[in-house]
Amino acid sequence: MNSIKVFAPATVANVACGFDIFGLAVDNPGDEVILTRRNDSQICIQEITGDGGKLTKDPNKNTVTVPIIKYLESIGSNAGFDVVLHKKMALGSGLGSSSASAVAGVFAANELLGQPLKRKELLPFAMEGERVACGAAHADNVAPALLGGFVVVRSYSPLDVFQVPVPEDLFVSLIHPDVEVNTKDARHILKNEVSMNKAISQMGNVSGMIAGLMSSDYGLIGRSMVDFIIEPIRSILIPRFFEVKMAAMDAGALGCSISGAGPSIFAFSKGRETAEKVATAMKNEFETVNIQATTYVSTINVGGPKIL
Amino acid sequence: MNSIKVFAPATVANVACGFDIFGLAVDNPGDEVILTRRNDSQICIQEITGDGGKLTKDPNKNTVTVPIIKYLESIGSNAGFDVVLHKKMALGSGLGSSSASAVAGVFAANELLGQPLKRKELLPFAMEGERVACGAAHADNVAPALLGGFVVVRSYSPLDVFQVPVPEDLFVSLIHPDVEVNTKDARHILKNEVSMNKAISQMGNVSGMIAGLMSSDYGLIGRSMVDFIIEPIRSILIPRFFEVKMAAMDAGALGCSISGAGPSIFAFSKGRETAEKVATAMKNEFETVNIQATTYVSTINVGGPKIL
Repeated sequence: MNSIKVFAPATVANVACGFDIFGLAVDNPGDEVILTRRNDSQICIQEITGDGGKLTKDPNKNTVTVPIIKYLESIGSNAGFDVVLHKKMALGSGLGSSSASAVAGVFAANELLGQPLKRKELLPFAMEGERVACGAAHADNVAPALLGGFVVVRSYSPLDVFQVPVPEDLFVSLIHPDVEVNTKDARHILKNEVSMNKAISQMGNVSGMIAGLMSSDYGLIGRSMVDFIIEPIRSILIPRFFEVKMAAMDAGALGCSISGAGPSIFAFSKGRETAEKVATAMKNEFETVNIQATTYVSTINVGGPKIL
Repeated sequence: MNSIKVFAPATVANVACGFDIFGLAVDNPGDEVILTRRNDSQICIQEITGDGGKLTKDPNKNTVTVPIIKYLESIGSNAGFDVVLHKKMALGSGLGSSSASAVAGVFAANELLGQPLKRKELLPFAMEGERVACGAAHADNVAPALLGGFVVVRSYSPLDVFQVPVPEDLFVSLIHPDVEVNTKDARHILKNEVSMNKAISQMGNVSGMIAGLMSSDYGLIGRSMVDFIIEPIRSILIPRFFEVKMAAMDAGALGCSISGAGPSIFAFSKGRETAEKVATAMKNEFETVNIQATTYVSTINVGGPKIL
């Protein structure tokens, strides 16, 4: 095999109460990367589509290629690749755009080389893509994009990541309004301290989310989707956030919050029909103020990246 | 039935990473309360043993009778009781002593009156016993004492409490050193703010504890038993805490931390044999500095209070 095309999914980080520790993958959107072996050991970005010309083609700075380079160094390979990246979601959308690209690239390289590393072992390299994109090697988008499902980053030092089983009938409605929030800005406005009372309330919800997912208790999942720490701050960067959230809840969502650093918003619902209604309700709310928005409805993606 | 004798279990609150939200019940020790119907509507404390004369017999101030009085008011009953309390654990021990008494009392009253309320509905009344004992109506000892098992207090407003299934082979080693820590003091030294980084790490461990318990992943349970927020502060009130913790870990414990506000210390182990070794190791460590200590080993109690 000399060439491979890989899809890696968009992800929702934080998932209401789990700032920097929860993330989940969705079925769509997702980025596509095509890797082709070269006869030399160069990494060359041949083409990028869908980014509006914003992404660098310098392999030492691009989120697809930095993980590949670190990966090749680590396994002592001198392989070279031509790289094509098809962005299928907006940059700075809060959908884990950079993570999807990073995961697609390093997953593709590992497949082309005959899987010298296990899937989970690719995580530290994919995280290097996040460092390029937002200045810190976070794992809450990268881990679910790589592993699929609902993922908890229990610890960074040492890195300890695990998957949580999810109920079959849990659906995600995602909406990306056409306004840009830079992840660095969204992180910058957060405080370095949090009140003990809020931390305790948040830990209660984190517990409820995990227990609710593992026991298919949709009511508990919904009650636990309250974010005392991040949403009150980051929501000020998203026009019409509370109206959109209210529209989602009125349409039957279990809960609704910001996807990652925003401006995308996600909601959980029981059943596809409700999730479709929720997506429509959110879109209609944005349209009342002439903000165009793209919606996606899917289950939680349990497979992670896949070869196309 | 005119008279009833009820046992309610000691409890471990916080359980390492879950400050104010996690609690679990053990098989022993536990307090005993005997209630006997009176012909009038008075609540009279006839006898208290095991408290060294420290507890008040004023029914409006005692942790057993305050919940009973609130409960009777709530259901509109004019029943009266003679009350006998046998304390089977030290006051201010970090073992949920006041909760055990409060739960035993209100549970006994509800049984004698033919169960007008469901078990879970007794929780707010038992919490009033905590308010008498430590100034605030916490639920992290009362809820597991009343419901049994491992309990999460997800929210106080509204009150939302749920049980988490626990692995069969998970054992608790408890040690109560003969030094007193007042819960009010232990709470007073805590800070009102916590760093965002510590809150995030703690939330990761809270997630790991719930997922570990629900999936019988003993390794994950152990890795999650790290408290970044409370243990570093409260442990200074417990002589020899870190040496005792190290002794527990060296003896094979999955994890070890302060029970409630201390000075009692608990450890989790897989299997009774290891849990017994851990208890002995902790006791030996205290004895090197001539601190006498009482140990208890049990599974997590799944029944809560019981009629004797």
